[in-house]
Amino acid sequence: MSAHSGKPVLAIVGATGAVGTVMREVVSERADLWSEVRLVASARSAGRRLPVRGEEVVVRELTPDVFDGVDLAMFDVPDEVSERWAPIAASRGVVVIDKSGAFRLDPQVPLVVPEVNPDDAADRPKGIISVPNCTTLAMIVALGALHRAFGLRELVAASYQAASGAGQAGADALYDQLSKVGGNRTLGQRPGDVRAAIGDPGPFGAPLAMNVVPWAGSLRDEGWSSEELKIRNETRKILGMPDLKVTSTCVRVPVVTGHSLAVHAVFECEVTRQAAREVLADAPGVELKDDPERGEFPTPADIVGTDPTWVGRVRQSLDDPHGIDLFVCGDNLRKGAALNAAQIAELLVTGQAGQPS
Amino acid sequence: MSAHSGKPVLAIVGATGAVGTVMREVVSERADLWSEVRLVASARSAGRRLPVRGEEVVVRELTPDVFDGVDLAMFDVPDEVSERWAPIAASRGVVVIDKSGAFRLDPQVPLVVPEVNPDDAADRPKGIISVPNCTTLAMIVALGALHRAFGLRELVAASYQAASGAGQAGADALYDQLSKVGGNRTLGQRPGDVRAAIGDPGPFGAPLAMNVVPWAGSLRDEGWSSEELKIRNETRKILGMPDLKVTSTCVRVPVVTGHSLAVHAVFECEVTRQAAREVLADAPGVELKDDPERGEFPTPADIVGTDPTWVGRVRQSLDDPHGIDLFVCGDNLRKGAALNAAQIAELLVTGQAGQPS
Repeated sequence: MSAHSGKPVLAIVGATGAVGTVMREVVSERADLWSEVRLVASARSAGRRLPVRGEEVVVRELTPDVFDGVDLAMFDVPDEVSERWAPIAASRGVVVIDKSGAFRLDPQVPLVVPEVNPDDAADRPKGIISVPNCTTLAMIVALGALHRAFGLRELVAASYQAASGAGQAGADALYDQLSKVGGNRTLGQRPGDVRAAIGDPGPFGAPLAMNVVPWAGSLRDEGWSSEELKIRNETRKILGMPDLKVTSTCVRVPVVTGHSLAVHAVFECEVTRQAAREVLADAPGVELKDDPERGEFPTPADIVGTDPTWVGRVRQSLDDPHGIDLFVCGDNLRKGAALNAAQIAELLVTGQAGQPS
Repeated sequence: MSAHSGKPVLAIVGATGAVGTVMREVVSERADLWSEVRLVASARSAGRRLPVRGEEVVVRELTPDVFDGVDLAMFDVPDEVSERWAPIAASRGVVVIDKSGAFRLDPQVPLVVPEVNPDDAADRPKGIISVPNCTTLAMIVALGALHRAFGLRELVAASYQAASGAGQAGADALYDQLSKVGGNRTLGQRPGDVRAAIGDPGPFGAPLAMNVVPWAGSLRDEGWSSEELKIRNETRKILGMPDLKVTSTCVRVPVVTGHSLAVHAVFECEVTRQAAREVLADAPGVELKDDPERGEFPTPADIVGTDPTWVGRVRQSLDDPHGIDLFVCGDNLRKGAALNAAQIAELLVTGQAGQPS
């Protein structure tokens, strides 16, 4: 894909953020892929030295010229920054892999999960490829494998989303709240006592420690949250099923990192528990941990920091032989963001997606 | 209902436990209903003095004779204790209101939620009435109201269950775990670090603090948990719909008390968001808190200690005009146990169920 000789040049735009930090870690795991990894951030962070591939690299300011000689750029910046800067980079011949929500539903921008729809990455008229939302990414690799085998017809999901899905500020708020309630054995028994102990509930609209909050994202029409619409619209686009029946309720839970979902999926054909488990056991990027007799199922605190989509609690719905119920977990900062972006970059460079370690 | 003159006599069997404590509180709120409230427990607790209706009452040992002169008995004891003792009490003419799982699916024992199926309480050939599981009770009052209006056809639920659903030991384990992790801002970022900090995960099979655990109850056939089967079987029986399509995934969350569920319900007719909200706003025992523009939705930490079933996030499913998605919360120790039992007792005595305050 590179016009110049040798290995391509990668830029990480937003290198100082929570996802940018994980992007530097993930890129360091495949250090031999790039001739240069350029770190880019806002003027405020320019000049800082940050580690990548075992060396300290000076962060450069986001300007048009910073893209000179760059082949691929992974963006993890707010929507409005992507909206402005991704086209600038693309106009200079850079392939942009964008984590923001700015272009995900643009029909001229593919929305790519390398294990599910790698071929979509080839057709990118704007020079931009989007990375799905972290909640969609927590389930889509497992769901894509089941869809290939059995043909998905309907999806009902309920999420258990981690605080860091709201960025570093979300994680910090949860730590702060946990430190305020952690030693108090009287809390959680009277209405509002947790709220009183925590004070300002911060970015979640209600206390998150010792609580769950049925809200994520911003308000859309008819009471839906943006996060719930993302699950529907992105799943439809990634699977190439614009009419797929999807519904969900998104709920924040007091977990630092690691999104989970309870999924009820209905397929075109009957699916036994054993058939579903066989497909999931063989699916690239999926780790099946499903032995309830031994108490084995995935939990976010056990899988945080790992790459796969973890699946457990696989069951055939008792009243619908076409239905499968399961529980999935994934690290929202790795596969849910940085890793999926790096896999797309690797797919473009090598022609194949690197599998989670 | 009483053969003797004056007000009836109530016994609370299992008066010293977590639910028994709330039973004493709930009974004290309608202190004028009973001529006597007799407290009964195992031999180990006999002789203790416990408060009820503003006075100290000596706990009596569970023996056949303790039921002499009793009209109604509310049992909150383990399944095997109910199995043995409920028939003994019933054979002495006592109407037993049993919180255990021992008789819930017995066709000769009605399973009663006063707001939903009060008439079922009249037909009790064994002299026993069962109280549903706390997870079913967290949603069934809201669901029953929607069913009466629109005709329920299918139910998909995902639970967010509190630690005290596993009894006082569950709540104690969560407090203990929270005290171990509360001040530590490095946890929750690497696989298993929460597990290492907590040590023995206790009754949940995995750490619950800073985590969610996709398991509740004991293992049944084909990977289902007992809790998931209870939601299905009890909902069918309470609504009188033996063939209702039900599926669910039960998940424990780090909340002390207050069960929540994300519910997707499909009805016989089209249901608009407004129509569903009107039904819920008028439903006895339901409190609608659903104003996402103002950030208003129920959370377990805000509603713990209250009586109603709280409902928020009401939406019409985007791809099915017959579908409604919503989020419900209820106190698993009050409506989920003690309050529902007391409402049944009141229904039998007065002919009408007391409404949550």
